[in-house]
Amino acid sequence: MSAQVLDGKACGAEVEAEVKAKVSVLNERGITPHLAVVIVGDDPASHVYVGAKERACERVGVKSTRIDLPADSDFSKVVDVVEKLNSDPSVHGILVQSPLPKGMDELAITDMIDPAKDVDGFHPVNLGRLVQGRADGLVPCTPAGVIRLLEWGGVDISGKNAVVIGRSRIVGAPVSLLLGRKGVDATVTISHSRTSDIADVCRAADIVIAAVGRAEMVQADWVKQGAAVVDVGVNRVDDESRERGYRLAGDVHPDVADVAGHLSPVPGGVGPMTIAMLMLNTVTAAESNS
Amino acid sequence: MSAQVLDGKACGAEVEAEVKAKVSVLNERGITPHLAVVIVGDDPASHVYVGAKERACERVGVKSTRIDLPADSDFSKVVDVVEKLNSDPSVHGILVQSPLPKGMDELAITDMIDPAKDVDGFHPVNLGRLVQGRADGLVPCTPAGVIRLLEWGGVDISGKNAVVIGRSRIVGAPVSLLLGRKGVDATVTISHSRTSDIADVCRAADIVIAAVGRAEMVQADWVKQGAAVVDVGVNRVDDESRERGYRLAGDVHPDVADVAGHLSPVPGGVGPMTIAMLMLNTVTAAESNS
Repeated sequence: MSAQVLDGKACGAEVEAEVKAKVSVLNERGITPHLAVVIVGDDPASHVYVGAKERACERVGVKSTRIDLPADSDFSKVVDVVEKLNSDPSVHGILVQSPLPKGMDELAITDMIDPAKDVDGFHPVNLGRLVQGRADGLVPCTPAGVIRLLEWGGVDISGKNAVVIGRSRIVGAPVSLLLGRKGVDATVTISHSRTSDIADVCRAADIVIAAVGRAEMVQADWVKQGAAVVDVGVNRVDDESRERGYRLAGDVHPDVADVAGHLSPVPGGVGPMTIAMLMLNTVTAAESNS
Repeated sequence: MSAQVLDGKACGAEVEAEVKAKVSVLNERGITPHLAVVIVGDDPASHVYVGAKERACERVGVKSTRIDLPADSDFSKVVDVVEKLNSDPSVHGILVQSPLPKGMDELAITDMIDPAKDVDGFHPVNLGRLVQGRADGLVPCTPAGVIRLLEWGGVDISGKNAVVIGRSRIVGAPVSLLLGRKGVDATVTISHSRTSDIADVCRAADIVIAAVGRAEMVQADWVKQGAAVVDVGVNRVDDESRERGYRLAGDVHPDVADVAGHLSPVPGGVGPMTIAMLMLNTVTAAESNS
C-alpha cells in the first residue's frame, strides 16, 4: 500500500484561485489587498520564506511591501515600524517574519500588531477566538492549511482520533483547537516531549499531525494502517552528497507512506498551504477593514 | 479502596488566605481591590452564584459592587454598563454573570470587557494567552481551580495522560491548554459528544476532568484504578424526596470513588475553587492596574 498524497501544491492552487476571485471583487470596489512583511536581519531561511510569500502575492493580485530591518535593529525600531503599519489604512495585513534576532521579544511584537491586521493569526485575540470555537476570523495559516488539506484529501475527521505531536503556539496548540472544535469534531490528543509513550499514542490515531521539528521522528511502526498523516516539519539534515551540504526532511519518516492512507509530502505539502492561507487571511482582512 | 477527596473547600481556603495577604499589601498602598458583578435577569442559579461570590469578596477584603439589570434589558444597556465599568478606574474586575437572557449575545459582551479587568478570563486575549502557553495573567477561574486542586492533592500531572470531557470555552478548552502547557506537561485528550468511544478514552487516563454537564455520566468502569478524577459538573436531577424537588449531581457517578485514587466532590470540589480563583484574579487585576 502506498499512501495517497495530500498534495499541498494542488490544494493550495485551489485556495489561491478562490483568493484571486475575492481580490477581483475587492478590485471592483477600488481596493487592492495589501500585505506588509517586516523582516529583521538576514536569516537565510526567512528570506526564502518571505520570497515565496511575495511571489504568492503577485500570483493572486495582493500588493506586497517588504520592510527590511538590519539584524542589530533596536526593539523600539521594530515597534515603530509595526505601529506605523497599524495606523496606515492602506495596509490590510502585517506579518513580522519569525525568527526575530536573538533576544528580541517575539511575543511582545505579536501583542502589538493590530489583531484586525494580524494575518499570521498569532495575536492572542485571534488565538483566543479558536478557544471559543470561532474560526471565522484570522486563523493561523499553517493550522488552517492542515485542516483544509485534510478536507481536500477527503479525510474523515468527525469522530476520529487525531493526535497532534508538538504544542507550539504557532502550529500544535491552534491545530488541536481547530481539529476538536464543533463542526470538525475530532477527538484530539496533544502530545509533546514529556509524553511518556508517544509511539503508542500515535498508533491509536486515525489522523496524525506531526509538528515537532525533529527530522523523521514519526516511524512507520508508529502509524496505524490507513491513518492520515500530515507532516508539518521542515528540518535540515546534514547531507554531504548535496552541494549545499544538507537536505530537507519532514517530521515523518518516508517509510510511513507504506502504512498511511494519506500523507502530505515535504516539501509540497503543508508549505504551500501555509502560504495560500496567508493570502486568504490577507484578503479576509482587506474585506473586513475597508 | 476509596478515593482521596480533592477537597475544594480546604484548598480554596488556602487560596483565599493567600489572596487576603495580597489584599493587605494593596491596602497599605491605599488600594482596595474592587469587583463589579453585572447580573441580568433573575435566573435563580445565577443569583446563588453571585451571592457566593459576594460573600467570598467579604471574606478576603475585596470590595464588591453588584449591578442588577432587569431580564428585559436591551443589549445596548448592558454594553453601556460594561463600558462605564471599563472606564471607571476604581473598578479592577468586571464579571458579567452567565447566562444572559435568551437571545443576548454573550460572546459580544465578553469581547467588550477590558481584558485587563476580565477576571472571568473569558476574553479572547486572555484565552489566547493560554494558547501561547502564558498562564501569568487572568486565567479562567474554573480551569485554574482544577489545576490548583490537582496540585494541592499531590496528583502527578507531568507526563501523565489526562482526558478532558467537554470542550466548552469556559472549562474544557482552557483546562486542556493549562494541563498540556510547558511546566505542567500532561498529554491531553479532549473528548466530547462526537467522540466515538468515550469510555475507552477515559479508561486510558491517569487524570479525568469531567466538564460535560451530564449528571453522573462518568461511570466507575470508565475509570482506571487509581486515576484522579475532577468533577466540574453541577447538574440538577429530579428528586421528589427533596423538598425543592431536585438534588445536585456532578458529571461523575458516586461509585467512581471506589476506583479513583483522587476524586473531587460535588458540591465542595471545583465550586469553591472557582470562587477562590476569581478572588485571586481580582487581586491580580488590582495589582496590575493600579
